[in-house]
Amino acid sequence: MTQSTDRWSPPVRDPDDDTPRLECGVFGIFDVEDAAGMTALGLHALQHRGQEACGIAAFDGQRFHTERHMGHVGDAFGGGGLSDRLPGRFAIGHTRYSTAGGSFIRNVQPMFADLESGGVALAHNGNLTNFLTLREQLVAEGAIFQSTSDSEVILHLIARSRKANLVERFTDALARIEGGYALVALTNKKMIGVRDPLGIRPLVLGDLDGKAVLASETCALDMIGARFVRDIEHGEMVVIDQNGVRSLRPFPAAQARPCIFEYVYFARPDSVVNGRSVYDVRKRMGRRLAMETPADVDVVVPVPDSGVPAALGFAQEAGLPFEMGIIRNHYVGRTFIQPTQGQRELGVRMKLSPNRSVLAGKRVMLIDDSIVRGTNSVRVVRMVREAGAKEVHLRSASPPIMWPDYYGIDMPDRDKLLAANNSVAEIAKILNVDSMGYLSVDGLYWAMEAGSRDAENPQFTDHYFTGDYPTRLLDREIAEGRNEAVERQLSFLVDA
Amino acid sequence: MTQSTDRWSPPVRDPDDDTPRLECGVFGIFDVEDAAGMTALGLHALQHRGQEACGIAAFDGQRFHTERHMGHVGDAFGGGGLSDRLPGRFAIGHTRYSTAGGSFIRNVQPMFADLESGGVALAHNGNLTNFLTLREQLVAEGAIFQSTSDSEVILHLIARSRKANLVERFTDALARIEGGYALVALTNKKMIGVRDPLGIRPLVLGDLDGKAVLASETCALDMIGARFVRDIEHGEMVVIDQNGVRSLRPFPAAQARPCIFEYVYFARPDSVVNGRSVYDVRKRMGRRLAMETPADVDVVVPVPDSGVPAALGFAQEAGLPFEMGIIRNHYVGRTFIQPTQGQRELGVRMKLSPNRSVLAGKRVMLIDDSIVRGTNSVRVVRMVREAGAKEVHLRSASPPIMWPDYYGIDMPDRDKLLAANNSVAEIAKILNVDSMGYLSVDGLYWAMEAGSRDAENPQFTDHYFTGDYPTRLLDREIAEGRNEAVERQLSFLVDA
Amino acid sequence: MTQSTDRWSPPVRDPDDDTPRLECGVFGIFDVEDAAGMTALGLHALQHRGQEACGIAAFDGQRFHTERHMGHVGDAFGGGGLSDRLPGRFAIGHTRYSTAGGSFIRNVQPMFADLESGGVALAHNGNLTNFLTLREQLVAEGAIFQSTSDSEVILHLIARSRKANLVERFTDALARIEGGYALVALTNKKMIGVRDPLGIRPLVLGDLDGKAVLASETCALDMIGARFVRDIEHGEMVVIDQNGVRSLRPFPAAQARPCIFEYVYFARPDSVVNGRSVYDVRKRMGRRLAMETPADVDVVVPVPDSGVPAALGFAQEAGLPFEMGIIRNHYVGRTFIQPTQGQRELGVRMKLSPNRSVLAGKRVMLIDDSIVRGTNSVRVVRMVREAGAKEVHLRSASPPIMWPDYYGIDMPDRDKLLAANNSVAEIAKILNVDSMGYLSVDGLYWAMEAGSRDAENPQFTDHYFTGDYPTRLLDREIAEGRNEAVERQLSFLVDA
Amino acid sequence: MTQSTDRWSPPVRDPDDDTPRLECGVFGIFDVEDAAGMTALGLHALQHRGQEACGIAAFDGQRFHTERHMGHVGDAFGGGGLSDRLPGRFAIGHTRYSTAGGSFIRNVQPMFADLESGGVALAHNGNLTNFLTLREQLVAEGAIFQSTSDSEVILHLIARSRKANLVERFTDALARIEGGYALVALTNKKMIGVRDPLGIRPLVLGDLDGKAVLASETCALDMIGARFVRDIEHGEMVVIDQNGVRSLRPFPAAQARPCIFEYVYFARPDSVVNGRSVYDVRKRMGRRLAMETPADVDVVVPVPDSGVPAALGFAQEAGLPFEMGIIRNHYVGRTFIQPTQGQRELGVRMKLSPNRSVLAGKRVMLIDDSIVRGTNSVRVVRMVREAGAKEVHLRSASPPIMWPDYYGIDMPDRDKLLAANNSVAEIAKILNVDSMGYLSVDGLYWAMEAGSRDAENPQFTDHYFTGDYPTRLLDREIAEGRNEAVERQLSFLVDA
Repeated sequence: MTQSTDRWSPPVRDPDDDTPRLECGVFGIFDVEDAAGMTALGLHALQHRGQEACGIAAFDGQRFHTERHMGHVGDAFGGGGLSDRLPGRFAIGHTRYSTAGGSFIRNVQPMFADLESGGVALAHNGNLTNFLTLREQLVAEGAIFQSTSDSEVILHLIARSRKANLVERFTDALARIEGGYALVALTNKKMIGVRDPLGIRPLVLGDLDGKAVLASETCALDMIGARFVRDIEHGEMVVIDQNGVRSLRPFPAAQARPCIFEYVYFARPDSVVNGRSVYDVRKRMGRRLAMETPADVDVVVPVPDSGVPAALGFAQEAGLPFEMGIIRNHYVGRTFIQPTQGQRELGVRMKLSPNRSVLAGKRVMLIDDSIVRGTNSVRVVRMVREAGAKEVHLRSASPPIMWPDYYGIDMPDRDKLLAANNSVAEIAKILNVDSMGYLSVDGLYWAMEAGSRDAENPQFTDHYFTGDYPTRLLDREIAEGRNEAVERQLSFLVDA
Repeated sequence: MTQSTDRWSPPVRDPDDDTPRLECGVFGIFDVEDAAGMTALGLHALQHRGQEACGIAAFDGQRFHTERHMGHVGDAFGGGGLSDRLPGRFAIGHTRYSTAGGSFIRNVQPMFADLESGGVALAHNGNLTNFLTLREQLVAEGAIFQSTSDSEVILHLIARSRKANLVERFTDALARIEGGYALVALTNKKMIGVRDPLGIRPLVLGDLDGKAVLASETCALDMIGARFVRDIEHGEMVVIDQNGVRSLRPFPAAQARPCIFEYVYFARPDSVVNGRSVYDVRKRMGRRLAMETPADVDVVVPVPDSGVPAALGFAQEAGLPFEMGIIRNHYVGRTFIQPTQGQRELGVRMKLSPNRSVLAGKRVMLIDDSIVRGTNSVRVVRMVREAGAKEVHLRSASPPIMWPDYYGIDMPDRDKLLAANNSVAEIAKILNVDSMGYLSVDGLYWAMEAGSRDAENPQFTDHYFTGDYPTRLLDREIAEGRNEAVERQLSFLVDA
Repeated sequence: MTQSTDRWSPPVRDPDDDTPRLECGVFGIFDVEDAAGMTALGLHALQHRGQEACGIAAFDGQRFHTERHMGHVGDAFGGGGLSDRLPGRFAIGHTRYSTAGGSFIRNVQPMFADLESGGVALAHNGNLTNFLTLREQLVAEGAIFQSTSDSEVILHLIARSRKANLVERFTDALARIEGGYALVALTNKKMIGVRDPLGIRPLVLGDLDGKAVLASETCALDMIGARFVRDIEHGEMVVIDQNGVRSLRPFPAAQARPCIFEYVYFARPDSVVNGRSVYDVRKRMGRRLAMETPADVDVVVPVPDSGVPAALGFAQEAGLPFEMGIIRNHYVGRTFIQPTQGQRELGVRMKLSPNRSVLAGKRVMLIDDSIVRGTNSVRVVRMVREAGAKEVHLRSASPPIMWPDYYGIDMPDRDKLLAANNSVAEIAKILNVDSMGYLSVDGLYWAMEAGSRDAENPQFTDHYFTGDYPTRLLDREIAEGRNEAVERQLSFLVDA
Repeated sequence: MTQSTDRWSPPVRDPDDDTPRLECGVFGIFDVEDAAGMTALGLHALQHRGQEACGIAAFDGQRFHTERHMGHVGDAFGGGGLSDRLPGRFAIGHTRYSTAGGSFIRNVQPMFADLESGGVALAHNGNLTNFLTLREQLVAEGAIFQSTSDSEVILHLIARSRKANLVERFTDALARIEGGYALVALTNKKMIGVRDPLGIRPLVLGDLDGKAVLASETCALDMIGARFVRDIEHGEMVVIDQNGVRSLRPFPAAQARPCIFEYVYFARPDSVVNGRSVYDVRKRMGRRLAMETPADVDVVVPVPDSGVPAALGFAQEAGLPFEMGIIRNHYVGRTFIQPTQGQRELGVRMKLSPNRSVLAGKRVMLIDDSIVRGTNSVRVVRMVREAGAKEVHLRSASPPIMWPDYYGIDMPDRDKLLAANNSVAEIAKILNVDSMGYLSVDGLYWAMEAGSRDAENPQFTDHYFTGDYPTRLLDREIAEGRNEAVERQLSFLVDA
């Protein structure tokens, strides 16, 4: 019998895990057989964008059906019977790593509301920078929040709009939110996709035998055999119904400024984001890195898996052998094995292990995609040294990370960011490497084939490296005015 | 690790089960050590009022904590560790059988809302007769409902009130709801108890070492060793805080009219409801039944357990031996074993079995508390005959049930009620008994020691027997005007 | 997805629980449609004989299928789909409370072995008094035990017999075991039932439309609508196959000596054990008790449920009113709610609550079936006094329990038995009653309508009252010779 | 509360999955703090050798404790508290993919037996080729099997040995078994490791701060920071106790003949097996493949992850660019998402997706480690063509697989093996590739740096390629004599 309860214990993580995390992937498909099954496959392809929880809302022409689970898509929606549980030709889905809002099933998306006009389900990737401000206003007006997810703010704004039809209500709501986001919504008549005015978070339109598909990345289209049509543009709203795809522009015109970190780390290498192959961009990062920070080494070794394309680019540019000197364990589960005696350095080996035959006696060039706190790098370098490397050099295929994010990337505060508090020389000492190098910001733009960075109107969202935030940060400004921390867990309720 | 998901499969019931069901029991306790543990015990004592789900909300001075589970109180909250999971000196709880709202964890109470003034948790026993009307109004105003429980309507009314303090907001909300109900609410400062203007649903005040307790029945006070103080009066609102218990009268004055079915079936025999011992009332029902419908029999046998007190009263009045001729199986679980060959009559034996040594060769008088559809009675009579009874006579310790309820009792529609569609003679034939008898309405009032029924202003809610409903039935009237069925499952969402 | 793991956490019990426990009920049915469904119903009727775990083994003509679960029969085997999981026309089942062997799924029966001749499944009620001795011999011969259940010893003896056919092997094995037991076994051709030479543990033969049924008690026959044929006799082995029921006598002739505690407590009141109605015997115990130990009281109140028939008998004999002065809570789950502040006396109220209207101001005669350690009695008496009783008198419907059991009843050691260490007067003081009384051994035999006790060849197994054990106790003698405790948990393995 | 039951539903697999599977990894550690935690880490490193189930047996000086679970090591043993559940300084563990024996928890290792001398736990990698024959003999002698695992045969042989001490009993048992295997056993005094007479399955000895460790592969030593000491030799038995490591030779002397498929596919690339780096051997396979079967292509692309080293070797030898043209999805869970409309070809994309920017318009050389049935290759080739490749060439880094295995590798029967039934030219057509090539057997030996293959006494077990089995196959011969299929599921019992 299926258990049902309102409590959840979060998975145990490696405390020294140093990867930045993105909160979400979204997917939607309109008018196909077994829409939920297709959505499950699409979410599976987007699993790298959020591994903590996932959900699907399907509409069968009469009723909406939802399922929301903690855990991976394959565990939640594999194993058969999905078309009975979530019937219908219309579905949207969401895969999530939580930043705002705790790890509770109530915060898992898609969120759903019964409006006068019928149901609306909403899935959302990104973060609203005026979430707290809006939430306070809505609560003062009598709105009851059942989650601490900022997606629920958008639902309340839609529900309270005085406009007549749903598309106008949606537009009304969008006028009040700020931040970086991509939305996919499903009503009893339409599927809607929205990308924020600057196009910070990605969203693409696909076509499966004449039917529309929306997804965070093209890899989800490939998964279900759909054709890539185009990126949803910055500030664009697409409304999909039986008459096809209609494009609206609910926001004032602005120049696009997509998040460059999608290329550095988040997007899958086989995705094409804003017209650029992620794999090609990463290889160019590696090539440029080889030009900017060469070293006299024997072998180029990626920190797998995200460092692989840059390491290939580096090796090809430098004419050096590329070798898998570190092996990734693919079976890292939801929990973390830690023996009691506290040999904490064993932790890194849960995920990565040294390939001695490649490393022993060699001068090794390690290539990582980015370095946040440096905790992982310290352990990888030590592991490579213990495997017998003669020298260890480290390169980051992105510039120094010095500023936190407010658009849906989970990064530590500024005082925890390695590069915000140390020079490159100090970092080399901390990480115990023979040489240390970062890609330059100009090098990053070169890798994007975007010319040089326009300091007035930067082509990309790149504040992690530059401190140049693309929007105002209302909640943060108010909190600073009040001399408060920006509280991310709002509710007095601990739905334990 | 605790699993977490948003789906639930309901328990499998005996399709011929014929017991009426009550939707809820409520409990609250203010300012004691381990309030959640005390609440769990109190809910355990109220388990007979709702066995499908249960929940507790506790306040620790800083935050609210909730747990809501499908299943029994002992399974959900036993086993230790509760004071860590639900810390604090303030708690309310709820045990539920669903009438309105499907069997989903989202519908389990207490419900919670974060208002501007802080959190409020609400638990509710009863039913609002203008629930659909209010819900439609609220949705039109932009409210988002996360459940299909009518308790959520009350929370929205509180949230949207323009009044300044919470007690006034509460009063504001109460002014708009109609029906029969008992409420227990917990805020970050107060515990509130309310009983509807007619006192249809019960609520009592207790005292545990100077601290206030609220509960649906006195048996919950006995469970935790609390002293019974008094019934909350019809139309009374009590506000409990560190200064003690304050009594308010938010409604226009009205004459009390408590539900008489609490005495017939719902309340536990050891409870004292509105000043009357339930056990004593039931015995008097049996005594009067013996006077009104005597028969020449050898032995009086109760249909256990609810028929036991009336059977004792009948036997004592008639001077006949009382015997346990039917044995109840105490291990009936959440699911129902049914062999494939469809011997459906085996079903009743999951719960009841014949005691041949009492029944064989005897003229048996069976006493049941009430008869709804008669499906169970048919099978019990057949079982008793198969055990060798020479004659089988059946008596109902309450009058014929002829009208459905709208105040929180789950009964079938009129066309399914045995006594609404057949004469007593026809019923005797249908049930295959040698004689059939019901207590009269006057007999029922006699058992209550309430004098004779005042037709103008009946002393009790008794429409199941008389068709005389104590309030208007707004939702039903509107639905009849529209020529619709009164839809009880509102949401387009199936949170499967 | 079904979870599968080899660990188990035992349910949390009330530490003051004072009921003796029986380890098992057995059931078997041969050649009917959906044999597993029928077995589930039969086990449900036998749930009172063991509530910790249950299992079914079914044979579909080709293969054996088993399921073994911790928990109640309804939870384990209800809910549908059983005939797919456990197909076939042949099945046996078991319901268990563990005495020997820990609470591990490995110890749950039926046990199964693949012999040369094919599979054999075995379910067993009772205890072998030479279990340890046999187990040591078998291990020395190279047998590997996978459980700590004494049932597995029997399987090994069968497997190692040099006899040609299975019935002879069975007989061979039976020749080596000592104790009190009832066995049901299923092979690919036959169903076998055995009752120990003295008939200590019960076993009955039933008939369902010409097909054979075996069960511990007749209530299991009633449950499935089968006709009672006869008791399996002491020392009888029945072999059931397509040719019908064959009776064998594998043991030397002996006089029957069934366990009298089945009548006192274990068997269900609606069962007929060895030709006597359990309900009638219990009522006669009450009648005799009224004759032997009368008192001047106002009301006779049973400790429910097991005290009810004796209390009825007492009241009828004494001409006193019988009332349900204590109400039993039917929702006691698998775990025990205990608030942190340690008000341990609340524990008894999880199960029993006082009915004040019956007790207040009265001289109360409490009737219990038996008293073991007295912990429960202390709390019940206190509860009745707190409910306002003027006097409290207590009667045990069985003689003083002074000796432990070795035939499948879980009782504490002699130093924990109240009556083994105190006079009746002392007991009255300990329990704080105004008078105390026990049924005499002669009274017990009178209630059985068995004449007076034959001291040379007692008609019943009654050592709990007399110290007169019906068989030698080999394991115990050896342990005493070695000056050891009789170890009940043998394995070095903790299959945690 | 932990659930406990004896049923299991197997994970849903991709029906076209074409990877060979190995049944087990083993691990043991003697006399260290938190031995179970260390064992969990070691098993995690060996997860690639068996992902279906895992177990640990620990000895705390007094008692053995075991836990056996379906699923991955991290899920089963992560999350903390392990040292409380499995205390002690001595532990062995097992990770399993089932070949012999169904997917039941009863078959999960370590197996345990209580012998006269105390407990013994046993974990086993490999397969006995006279398992059925021994099992039949043992059953005829009265042994009861509780699993269908061939490991249990070894336990029974040990239990039944007439020898005095455990090491001699072990030796006695080993004398009777045939096949390829590595064993790790734990008694209350010793840890024992055994490798079969030919050393078919691997086993290594490590050292952690002076304490002995046994493991299937060196990567498990790296995981816990242990030092590699040496391979256990073919036909060697090591007995580890407080006095250190003693080496015994229980078998007649024979020439070593380890399984070459460990290098082709099973072992992790960072392991050193029998003195050879697996990564280096795989790169040499790729280099030789480039020499033997060159082609005019633009890019070399591995089928990830197992094809990566060979593809690197091929690219380096051929002077061609190496690119990650196929991306592996790391989140493939325990279940398989399959939309209802039966687009079966979507299946491969659950695991692999095309990287268009590498493939489009290119002549692509795909490198896979081996090809079994070819079902996966067909789909990969189609996927690469759909991504726009101009030409697709495929190379297998091992020779054609033409014969099934009987030593612990799960491969289909001969009629399902692609290369056993088709010429290379036919295979090219079936797989729709522009050219097809396999490594030669000589090439494989060259890659092993083992000289040329000695046809009289081959240096390696290589029957999959040559049909030259290293031992007799008793069960198979007997089955062929009886004209039966070699039954792998023996038991009549389906422990559903």
